[in-house]
Amino acid sequence: MKFSRHAQSLQASYIREILSAASQPEMISMAGGLPAASLLPVELIREACESMTDNPQLFQYGSSRGYQPLLETLARWSPESTQPWLICNGSQQGLDLIARALLEPGDQVVAEVPAYLGALQAFQLTGASLLPLLSGAAGPDLDQLEHYFKVTDVKLFYAVPDFHNPTGRVWSAETRIAVATLCRHYGVTLIEDSPYRQLRFSGAQLCSVSELYPEQTIRLISFSKTGFPGLRVGAMSGPAEFITVAERIKQATDLHTGIPQQVIIHRLLNHPEYPEHLIRLQQGYRSRYQYLSAELHQQLGQLIEFDPVEGGMFIWLSLKGKSGAQVASRALTHKLAVVPGAAFYDKGTATKDCHIRLNFSNTDTALVQEAVARLAKAL
Amino acid sequence: MKFSRHAQSLQASYIREILSAASQPEMISMAGGLPAASLLPVELIREACESMTDNPQLFQYGSSRGYQPLLETLARWSPESTQPWLICNGSQQGLDLIARALLEPGDQVVAEVPAYLGALQAFQLTGASLLPLLSGAAGPDLDQLEHYFKVTDVKLFYAVPDFHNPTGRVWSAETRIAVATLCRHYGVTLIEDSPYRQLRFSGAQLCSVSELYPEQTIRLISFSKTGFPGLRVGAMSGPAEFITVAERIKQATDLHTGIPQQVIIHRLLNHPEYPEHLIRLQQGYRSRYQYLSAELHQQLGQLIEFDPVEGGMFIWLSLKGKSGAQVASRALTHKLAVVPGAAFYDKGTATKDCHIRLNFSNTDTALVQEAVARLAKAL
Repeated sequence: MKFSRHAQSLQASYIREILSAASQPEMISMAGGLPAASLLPVELIREACESMTDNPQLFQYGSSRGYQPLLETLARWSPESTQPWLICNGSQQGLDLIARALLEPGDQVVAEVPAYLGALQAFQLTGASLLPLLSGAAGPDLDQLEHYFKVTDVKLFYAVPDFHNPTGRVWSAETRIAVATLCRHYGVTLIEDSPYRQLRFSGAQLCSVSELYPEQTIRLISFSKTGFPGLRVGAMSGPAEFITVAERIKQATDLHTGIPQQVIIHRLLNHPEYPEHLIRLQQGYRSRYQYLSAELHQQLGQLIEFDPVEGGMFIWLSLKGKSGAQVASRALTHKLAVVPGAAFYDKGTATKDCHIRLNFSNTDTALVQEAVARLAKAL
Repeated sequence: MKFSRHAQSLQASYIREILSAASQPEMISMAGGLPAASLLPVELIREACESMTDNPQLFQYGSSRGYQPLLETLARWSPESTQPWLICNGSQQGLDLIARALLEPGDQVVAEVPAYLGALQAFQLTGASLLPLLSGAAGPDLDQLEHYFKVTDVKLFYAVPDFHNPTGRVWSAETRIAVATLCRHYGVTLIEDSPYRQLRFSGAQLCSVSELYPEQTIRLISFSKTGFPGLRVGAMSGPAEFITVAERIKQATDLHTGIPQQVIIHRLLNHPEYPEHLIRLQQGYRSRYQYLSAELHQQLGQLIEFDPVEGGMFIWLSLKGKSGAQVASRALTHKLAVVPGAAFYDKGTATKDCHIRLNFSNTDTALVQEAVARLAKAL
């Protein structure tokens, strides 16, 4: 069989592959971006699951736009916005629909690097080109961003302003305003991907960039970090003309996202204890983060450094010049799975990256000391 | 916003749009391809739904290939085959993954016409061109098929050999052998889409074409017609190298199909009463078909004609020269939703089609007499 050019160019996701290595016996995994199993809000959806079969209609075909009560919940959540929502199979499908709705081969997409590889893959599958944008503690390099906007015909700017994956960084309020202003000035569509936004465990929440630039921002949200990744339910909102086109592509892609899984998410979001669940999740992740952070400092001392994070799921650990790929590979032999920094760069662009990404949300606290000891051996 | 060329060329699905018209009060719908609500096997999955939250692990991320126990069930079902399976969000996603794995803009795809428009949309989204293949009672026109294979570089042949949508036709055993032979001779990949195969209510089951040409057939199956369309779970099998590439594209598309919905399908397929459910479904659809068939002959007499079907969900009703589009539109004013034949042709190729498609699986028997009376008025 001869595969399409784009299919041929698509690499297997390193992270998905390491996750299968991570399931080996005795392996400790800090590789995935999984929520804590013990904090999954299964009690809040028990009744919804138990009564699901009482309403057979939920098992029939549904609307491509999404399950109406869930769409209404999302609309209630953002009363200031009149932009419609589209339910997707996780926000990953949102990225794919965006790419297919807007990108032609050769189109230019600016993305912060390092970046979530799943987004880059979705863009690359359309044949688009990526323009890497460097970023620092307060967000992306605005000069470089404007330079790109000036000298090339940038189609999309893909960004994760809150608890960026893998760096954990949060854009400052000033950066948000500046990016919105730049995008508006140059007429560039912004993709605000915010799966981690609700996982803030310290510091103050900042406004979404989409609120500053509603006319041309597409916003992706996920129920995989605060709810259940296994259900594959996410959503996106954006200009009505865009959502109409994205919905049409979704029809051709898989007709619609399944109804029972949307019913479960709808019940979760409307459960009276949902706000409490979010707080429990944030507190749980804060203590897990603090525990890992303390262990890293104590056991690894001067061998590493990292910026503190205020939320999310990850520590972006600098190995101070040591190759992330080598350390990750050596860690595997010590039965510890971590993701090397190079996995967050477009292929071949940064094999020399000197970071690893450590997940703190899913690692059992009882194992953290041992995990860091294994990392110490690998270093 | 400027949309991609392929997105711009994508039409809204007429069928999905008529389905929303069909939900108006007092409307009788024979438009959809829905299973009978009263025959949905909800009792067979009640326990699976009720106990779902006892195992929080089912709500975590899963494998892109699919839920292992479900994959094993499928492998057990086809012990003669060594080809791997990939779980998709309904077989519609399988079509989309096939298109993206194999098609380049300008590639040629042969498809029987009239055809399931969702398949044509998936192919067209990649920029492929469609070559329409005429078919008769025993299957496609083999001379025309060989002509296409001879004179152009055909990439895929898309076919629904069992209870074709919309015509309800079944390929003869001879046609199956001839198509497999032709595809093999010319090295063309065959897509065998078989959502309706298990809905045979009379006559003998014929072998799958994929069994005759396993080396280059991709086979799609659906759990939407025998199980629950609302869950969006289907599967495809094919050559290992193809499934590997399709899985990689699925990673970039939506990571994986949700686990709880695969658990439900797994439990359904392995329920001791599942074979009985299938028989009940087949018997139920046979009597619905016979009832509708008798009403059509009785009330419409010489105004219409149709070939009898041995399974599936549809009657392809010839209006003997009257425009299907006009009759369908007039039927709507009489509160009856049906799909005009033109909706099953590539855009603009057959607006003069003189058929309508009538669904018999989902129409309440008590309403059939009235539905046909409304159709009589429209005629």
